[in-house]
Amino acid sequence: MRPAEFDAAGWDEGGALPAEVRDAVARAGWFGVDLPTEHGGRGGSQAELGELCAEIGAVCSSVRALVTVQGMVSAAIARWGTDEQRSTWLPALAAGEHLAGFAATESGAGTELSAVDTRFERTGGEITVTGEKRWVTFGQEATVFLVLGKLDGRLAAVLVEKGAGVSTDPVRGQLGLRAAMVAHVRFDGVRVPVGNLVASPGFGLSHVIATALDHGRFTVAWGCAGMAAACVADVADHTVRRRQDAVPLAAHQLVRSMLARMAVDATAARELCLSAARARDAGEPGAVAGTVMAKYAAARAAASASQDAVQLLGSAGCASDSRVGRFFRDAKVMQIIEGSDQVSELHIADHLLREHRVGGKA
Amino acid sequence: MRPAEFDAAGWDEGGALPAEVRDAVARAGWFGVDLPTEHGGRGGSQAELGELCAEIGAVCSSVRALVTVQGMVSAAIARWGTDEQRSTWLPALAAGEHLAGFAATESGAGTELSAVDTRFERTGGEITVTGEKRWVTFGQEATVFLVLGKLDGRLAAVLVEKGAGVSTDPVRGQLGLRAAMVAHVRFDGVRVPVGNLVASPGFGLSHVIATALDHGRFTVAWGCAGMAAACVADVADHTVRRRQDAVPLAAHQLVRSMLARMAVDATAARELCLSAARARDAGEPGAVAGTVMAKYAAARAAASASQDAVQLLGSAGCASDSRVGRFFRDAKVMQIIEGSDQVSELHIADHLLREHRVGGKA
Amino acid sequence: MRPAEFDAAGWDEGGALPAEVRDAVARAGWFGVDLPTEHGGRGGSQAELGELCAEIGAVCSSVRALVTVQGMVSAAIARWGTDEQRSTWLPALAAGEHLAGFAATESGAGTELSAVDTRFERTGGEITVTGEKRWVTFGQEATVFLVLGKLDGRLAAVLVEKGAGVSTDPVRGQLGLRAAMVAHVRFDGVRVPVGNLVASPGFGLSHVIATALDHGRFTVAWGCAGMAAACVADVADHTVRRRQDAVPLAAHQLVRSMLARMAVDATAARELCLSAARARDAGEPGAVAGTVMAKYAAARAAASASQDAVQLLGSAGCASDSRVGRFFRDAKVMQIIEGSDQVSELHIADHLLREHRVGGKA
Amino acid sequence: MRPAEFDAAGWDEGGALPAEVRDAVARAGWFGVDLPTEHGGRGGSQAELGELCAEIGAVCSSVRALVTVQGMVSAAIARWGTDEQRSTWLPALAAGEHLAGFAATESGAGTELSAVDTRFERTGGEITVTGEKRWVTFGQEATVFLVLGKLDGRLAAVLVEKGAGVSTDPVRGQLGLRAAMVAHVRFDGVRVPVGNLVASPGFGLSHVIATALDHGRFTVAWGCAGMAAACVADVADHTVRRRQDAVPLAAHQLVRSMLARMAVDATAARELCLSAARARDAGEPGAVAGTVMAKYAAARAAASASQDAVQLLGSAGCASDSRVGRFFRDAKVMQIIEGSDQVSELHIADHLLREHRVGGKA
Repeated sequence: MRPAEFDAAGWDEGGALPAEVRDAVARAGWFGVDLPTEHGGRGGSQAELGELCAEIGAVCSSVRALVTVQGMVSAAIARWGTDEQRSTWLPALAAGEHLAGFAATESGAGTELSAVDTRFERTGGEITVTGEKRWVTFGQEATVFLVLGKLDGRLAAVLVEKGAGVSTDPVRGQLGLRAAMVAHVRFDGVRVPVGNLVASPGFGLSHVIATALDHGRFTVAWGCAGMAAACVADVADHTVRRRQDAVPLAAHQLVRSMLARMAVDATAARELCLSAARARDAGEPGAVAGTVMAKYAAARAAASASQDAVQLLGSAGCASDSRVGRFFRDAKVMQIIEGSDQVSELHIADHLLREHRVGGKA
Repeated sequence: MRPAEFDAAGWDEGGALPAEVRDAVARAGWFGVDLPTEHGGRGGSQAELGELCAEIGAVCSSVRALVTVQGMVSAAIARWGTDEQRSTWLPALAAGEHLAGFAATESGAGTELSAVDTRFERTGGEITVTGEKRWVTFGQEATVFLVLGKLDGRLAAVLVEKGAGVSTDPVRGQLGLRAAMVAHVRFDGVRVPVGNLVASPGFGLSHVIATALDHGRFTVAWGCAGMAAACVADVADHTVRRRQDAVPLAAHQLVRSMLARMAVDATAARELCLSAARARDAGEPGAVAGTVMAKYAAARAAASASQDAVQLLGSAGCASDSRVGRFFRDAKVMQIIEGSDQVSELHIADHLLREHRVGGKA
Repeated sequence: MRPAEFDAAGWDEGGALPAEVRDAVARAGWFGVDLPTEHGGRGGSQAELGELCAEIGAVCSSVRALVTVQGMVSAAIARWGTDEQRSTWLPALAAGEHLAGFAATESGAGTELSAVDTRFERTGGEITVTGEKRWVTFGQEATVFLVLGKLDGRLAAVLVEKGAGVSTDPVRGQLGLRAAMVAHVRFDGVRVPVGNLVASPGFGLSHVIATALDHGRFTVAWGCAGMAAACVADVADHTVRRRQDAVPLAAHQLVRSMLARMAVDATAARELCLSAARARDAGEPGAVAGTVMAKYAAARAAASASQDAVQLLGSAGCASDSRVGRFFRDAKVMQIIEGSDQVSELHIADHLLREHRVGGKA
Repeated sequence: MRPAEFDAAGWDEGGALPAEVRDAVARAGWFGVDLPTEHGGRGGSQAELGELCAEIGAVCSSVRALVTVQGMVSAAIARWGTDEQRSTWLPALAAGEHLAGFAATESGAGTELSAVDTRFERTGGEITVTGEKRWVTFGQEATVFLVLGKLDGRLAAVLVEKGAGVSTDPVRGQLGLRAAMVAHVRFDGVRVPVGNLVASPGFGLSHVIATALDHGRFTVAWGCAGMAAACVADVADHTVRRRQDAVPLAAHQLVRSMLARMAVDATAARELCLSAARARDAGEPGAVAGTVMAKYAAARAAASASQDAVQLLGSAGCASDSRVGRFFRDAKVMQIIEGSDQVSELHIADHLLREHRVGGKA
């Protein structure tokens, strides 16, 4: 399956991704691009992962989100899990035998994940999980959740398989990412083995969830770069073909000016994504901050490019099957999730000010 | 019926405005606000019309669009129609006995209405109408259309009642204005009396349709001002109530800064609308240009305010029943219809340069 | 003297306003436009004051600043002074026999005027003034200063005539407002009669200085509206006359688009200024907040319009005698003084949120 | 000499670069960074040249402009000159024995260099040069000019040494680049050997001048990236040190948000510059278009960052010795020269549309 063959508009309208698409994604190896080969992955670089996300993102944000969430949970396990967790879960996730759900956000906590109410209680060799998570991407279909909660007052992350005590409440009709099968997920005294705890209590947010979010931002960034580039391509295509009074739209300065701005933003976003990929592949200390910057810039480029693309395509951009019209809705969501634009700005500034204080000014 | 009682989210999701809503709008007198009382109107000022459109627009763009299109056709008849046309059509339009469709745009013509292909042929006391119009707001339900076409090579405007030879093709799933029951409308050799010609051939676009569009821009401008103000109100409401870590969102400088910018844009848009209303009520020569400016600024304010409102409401702003999420989609459409932002800019500049050359002002 | 005759470029380059210009301003009655006739003023409305400031601001920001600062001190005395203070100072200020300096800002206090260090000590019938004020517009020439300081720990405002113990340190070469003869002013144990205290201690900032600042923002707002309109005029003028390859610059869509945006911003700023003037003339409670909004929008419009004007005039806009090049520098200063853009945003949001809480949402 | 030791503020105020600075630049080898070692250069890569320009640009745009113009003329000779021209001129330019002037722009031609009026007439072994060039950077000091003109109706480029018949008219007081010793230069029947013709007639603009401009845009782009980064550093520095009410400015969300946006833009500009450098070093066909994009984005980043930096530094940013205040003026000039923002947008769009048509990419 190639992204170009996706029926993204149909999935968006139907509000679901068909099971065969998820299977095809698994068979294509997209779930394990950057996982070690010993765990069923392809051992690819961050740059390879990024390019794939851009290619998928240029067609369907929901499929890209599927790859993102699977990758988030895999990355957290790969980095912080025990050998046993790695060998148990990573091959299953890479092969798509399990679909992962990232269950961190709650109703009251907003962007402050440290305020989650979900409780973990240890009894003997088991942990009991009780809480309600919201806006879980592919929560309708996930078979295993990485859940953030509190164990003895300390933030911890636990893997919970779908089963008795796990109920999902599908979210329908949201603005964007409509085929991402989002659900609120409720854990009602679900018991899991103690071995499902990822890293020690106290490291749940700062390490486990942080790694997942970092991975998520990276793939969202590239997906957005792909969206922005797709908007540029669709505008170029439309304005060259579409004529008014016998001249193509692209002959108009105003059109060319808007196209140029879109292209500059899209290219800049892509360069920031490439820079983040290099920093990640090199293990540079600034890689996390560079990823935040890439995600921030790319989400804004996608939002802005899709706005301009709908504007320039006019009624064609507002039609139900329009790619740029769909991206107009999807890109807005990208500016909110995995760290909103506002949270990202504060994150970027904090990093910069810290560097500045340490390094002395340039 | 008061706008606050509208089920705008439901109508948007259902893609239609219930017949009883249209009846209620008629009963409320909203169709004839600025029509002369002698023709069944309320004889109100442009400022009154504007305020009503703002009030409706703050709740449901589709109802506002209903009032707009009825008003566009009524205004054209009121200004350019014969006494007979006025006494025949205006009371019926004011009372909602007829629903009007504005049938100007065609597939190939884009913003250049002078290039329409619709043909009018006169035979005896009848005119035969043949052509296909696109994106007719409430075209699914309209009972009479103001059609732009060519008669003997000259642009003309003709009123065509729905009936034999008129077929409609509903447009579904478009980005915004989803309850506005848009349709493509085909006229297949429809015969109408010669008395349905509004103004003389040659005046169809420059006078009849121009008046309709001017009226449309004015009501869209006010509707957008209402949308922008509603976004400000929803953000104020949300950020005061919603707390994170025990402090309301509104306590954050970044939130207050965004709110202030939204409020300034919304207020400026409203002032430009008020200024246009004064110019129209006074019959000033610059009223048309002032209306274009108001429409341009208000559509941009609505677009920008709704983007920020969704951003600040976060997941609540992306939910299916969110007013600001709906406005995010609707406002985009407002930047395209009745003169896109780009066409408006050129219009504004042309007017300004003409004034400048004439007045030689410093 | 008419603004059009000003040698604004020369004064800017020379860094000073000639004494005869200040005299001419006084003779023209510009210092007392809105002061009561019984105190030597012209009893004009706020709208009249505004229009004058726009007219002056369109030519020379430094002359407009002269009118502003004289008006700020006059307004504070007119509203909060005793009868004796009013009859002593207002005629002298209206006639230009005294030039006023507004001495509030200090080195450490920034935008938080409540943190001023200037001390007032009362001994018998005298107050001793000690402190150092910064960035006093026309501080080089002022003959009487309205000084903010602390008397027994309470904020108070005192009028101090120039004389022994008052020394000024001219500020040269600043970015904009170069002919405004700015100075740092030092008060070194200056003794003034107790009768020079304006309003009671405790009311110095919240009432006396607040009134001055409100007046200042209003006149700055109008001055900026004048600057923005002047930029539009200069661009229209230049692009109609200037030809490249035989076509005028104004024939280019990109030029017309930029011109239109400038015009919309300038017009919106003017409408907000007019709205603030109406609110002030009517004594509406929201007049202060409306003035902040007008100042904020107008300063941004002037900044943005001057940036675009320099861009479109190209080398002509960068030349030493270019009005728009001067405005490019002046407008930046307007975004900083009398409440920076950032402070204004917080001010606007606070007002809006307060109204919202009181009124219930729209 | 290191850039950090420059007295940039003093040179800006004085309107000139001291001769010893130009000598020091030559001794440091900055004139020949990317010239072949066989011609006295350092044989450096485009990336090395870029980094140097960023370092200089972060301190003094006028010194950077000196390096730019010397490099522009050198690049044109290096690429299109004869062996003799290369061995004659390049070592002298690299060593600073000659200072180059780029004499293309004329009064009437604007951005359309093909419309120049300068005439070249061939008589025997000599060419007579007659014309007037405007806005020649370092035209006051240049000892050799690369002049664009017409020979037998075809555009040609000729090297003209300063001497009899060459007169210069210094430009003073312009908005930015004040120490760049700009002059209008008049060639009054100046005779030069035919061997001073660079490339054949007909190739003067499309090849010789185009190469110079491409080199110019590349170095301006990097200079602007340096300016933007310097603004970020100055804001970080100021807002960490400067306290209001005992909290540093940097503690305010609004400040951090502005700082983050500046940093993202500056980083994106730098990445686009790096990308252009890689494309140039690899000899990629898209290198010219990539350079235009880098210049466009970097000039805008510098303009925007300097506006925000002056805003955040407040009065300190408006002071005569403020780096960001100087950059506020300089960056505006960068948006105009070597292809204005508007010309760049059209250039970028044209390239993109050409690629799109050829590649038919999705």
